[in-house]
Amino acid sequence: MTVELISVGTELLLGNIVNTNAAYLAEKCADLGLSCFYQSVVGDNEERLAAVLKTALERSDIVILSGGLGPTEDDLTKEVSAKVMGRKLAMHEPSRKRIEEYFISRNMELTENNWKQAMMPEGAIAVNNENGTAPGVIIEDREKKVVLLPGPPNEMIPMFEKSIMPYLAGKDSEVIYSQTVKICGVGESKAETLIKDMIDSQGNPTIATYAKNCEVHLRVTAKAAGEKEAKKLVKPVVKELKNRFGPCVYTTNADITLEKAVVDLLIANKLTVSTVESCTGGMLAARLINVPGVSDVYKSGYITYSNKAKRRILGIKKGLLEKKGAVSEEVAKEMAKGAAAISRAEVAVSITGIAGPGGGTEEKPVGLVYIACNVCGKIKVRKCNFRGNRAKIRETAVSSALILMRQCILEYYSEVTF
Amino acid sequence: MTVELISVGTELLLGNIVNTNAAYLAEKCADLGLSCFYQSVVGDNEERLAAVLKTALERSDIVILSGGLGPTEDDLTKEVSAKVMGRKLAMHEPSRKRIEEYFISRNMELTENNWKQAMMPEGAIAVNNENGTAPGVIIEDREKKVVLLPGPPNEMIPMFEKSIMPYLAGKDSEVIYSQTVKICGVGESKAETLIKDMIDSQGNPTIATYAKNCEVHLRVTAKAAGEKEAKKLVKPVVKELKNRFGPCVYTTNADITLEKAVVDLLIANKLTVSTVESCTGGMLAARLINVPGVSDVYKSGYITYSNKAKRRILGIKKGLLEKKGAVSEEVAKEMAKGAAAISRAEVAVSITGIAGPGGGTEEKPVGLVYIACNVCGKIKVRKCNFRGNRAKIRETAVSSALILMRQCILEYYSEVTF
Repeated sequence: MTVELISVGTELLLGNIVNTNAAYLAEKCADLGLSCFYQSVVGDNEERLAAVLKTALERSDIVILSGGLGPTEDDLTKEVSAKVMGRKLAMHEPSRKRIEEYFISRNMELTENNWKQAMMPEGAIAVNNENGTAPGVIIEDREKKVVLLPGPPNEMIPMFEKSIMPYLAGKDSEVIYSQTVKICGVGESKAETLIKDMIDSQGNPTIATYAKNCEVHLRVTAKAAGEKEAKKLVKPVVKELKNRFGPCVYTTNADITLEKAVVDLLIANKLTVSTVESCTGGMLAARLINVPGVSDVYKSGYITYSNKAKRRILGIKKGLLEKKGAVSEEVAKEMAKGAAAISRAEVAVSITGIAGPGGGTEEKPVGLVYIACNVCGKIKVRKCNFRGNRAKIRETAVSSALILMRQCILEYYSEVTF
Repeated sequence: MTVELISVGTELLLGNIVNTNAAYLAEKCADLGLSCFYQSVVGDNEERLAAVLKTALERSDIVILSGGLGPTEDDLTKEVSAKVMGRKLAMHEPSRKRIEEYFISRNMELTENNWKQAMMPEGAIAVNNENGTAPGVIIEDREKKVVLLPGPPNEMIPMFEKSIMPYLAGKDSEVIYSQTVKICGVGESKAETLIKDMIDSQGNPTIATYAKNCEVHLRVTAKAAGEKEAKKLVKPVVKELKNRFGPCVYTTNADITLEKAVVDLLIANKLTVSTVESCTGGMLAARLINVPGVSDVYKSGYITYSNKAKRRILGIKKGLLEKKGAVSEEVAKEMAKGAAAISRAEVAVSITGIAGPGGGTEEKPVGLVYIACNVCGKIKVRKCNFRGNRAKIRETAVSSALILMRQCILEYYSEVTF
């Protein structure tokens, strides 16, 4: 069965708020095994809303609208939906009573327009709103269902979970199961080339690729009558992907980030880590420290943005800085050596580069970054040429440093080669 | 003129990501004076994407599509748009060259499917992508315009601002002029209360308030026949807002961020700065160092996540850490003192707190953060109780530290009181 989402609200059309409702509802519908092919946003306008709803009903089985159930004249979703579905509105006594109680219990004054919220399309199912005055509405018409939800997430989400999900769960017998294979150190197009045959012949399960800064995520999704069967379909595909990408696969758990994988690897090998950063100025440390439990492995971090700081904190020789420049293989190496020495961590990572917009030369252009990783004295340096603005260069440098850390630790401890 | 937004991507239909692109584009289009009545999301599917685009072209003057310009077979936006507009695709030599250079400069392997990104619809305008390989596309057909943008925000946003906004700005006869008054250290509802009379009586210009992590942005927008007239309408309103919020206004320039304002203040007062962070682990340094030109003022940064690091790097007494705990007013103060001493910077800022999810106690709950700012020996400490998850607590702590730095420097050098 197919579902379509319509978000109603001028504030969405003006970009005043981000449409988190659509993302929430889309994810929940996917979990329910409903296929969503379209989402729309439309304002509180009778004509346009009616047109969008009619189109949705032509191409989808279930249409979920959120927003526009408030008490003001602007709020038209229920009125327009009733009209499109050919229903009259009538006072719904239980809703009227609930609204009255809601106001009395809060010592709030009830105004005339509040009664509007107690009107229901004939033959519709009223859905309790435990966190506000607007009841939800379900209108069924042969094979089509229209579901109306309030716009505020704190009303919509509890209503959806408590009442709408169980209602929709009865509407489709198929289960959807997904697993994500996360890969680092391989570009998106190379990754696709490596599995072109699998993508070309995909059916159930499907394979979707998502490129993320220096990572590729492959999502394998199967539909089946039950969860067990769906998992059984996904398993061999995930296994094959793991075979093809080998040590570049860092997890098959959607909740694990690259930094979490690196921290887990440090913990598993009983290693401590220190970071020393120039152009990224603390971003690598910040990403590692966003992992709960990192305190077991993270020793200390140094931001040596200036040459003086590189000399004073890390003891890098003035001569070397003058001869090779702060952005050089040699200085990156010395930074990783120095950080290990002063922090006594087994793993030390350094980043030095030119993030721009100024500071680039022909020989050393903006985007030139050296990353060094020191694992128990064995140091590997990577020279990178990143593009983009300052923020993009720094972000890419941090992701590349995490990938280098992972590779160096695996090579040192597991004799894996990349 | 009307504009319509189409976001292309299965990950949006599955709810894997939130559609921040649509919110960004909607806001920018509103600023340009374009009316947006519809937004849609559709997957990478030829038939459905073509149908959505055709509908959009029937009811809107300008259609902006984002996503689906990648090198993989999934990516169909350009191919489908060309077909709908009746254009053939041909190799675009400058784009081909740029892509080739992109890969060579990164030492990356170019695969066959990358050339797909260099194909352009006949008669279309290719738009430079400074942060990726997918060029943007503008297709004009009599009164209709179709604009194709890459999906990743770090590619889409710079392209939109640099190339598409100037292009669209020429498409409407009325001029829109906006100025943003940025305020820090005042909550959203307090800010709204302070200017309720101005909001209630607004016409042209309008005043819109946007709450951002620890900041409130007030955007004053006027419409007029020319830029000069529009600016004239905006000026007195901005002046009045500056009067009402006094030193809490940190800029009236939309491009200036809070961290840029702080760096500018340091430069203006010839001050150097060092940071020392515990729970935020480098995030404050990273935000400061994202400001180009920060090298003139930033001395060094220390990430002392563990107690050992606090002792070894900053010389904080073991007894104090044991007696008061790492998250305490006293330790925050000592951190700011120690950082100033070892780095010899005039300004030193420290952050120590409990970001969670673990580590909280009844006395010191998750969200408790101490921030200290040392300006030439005069130290101010702020105790904060932040809400939210680990990431949110850390982000709020960093913004609060920037606000405290600004206040301390202004109080010390300009005798402003907050």
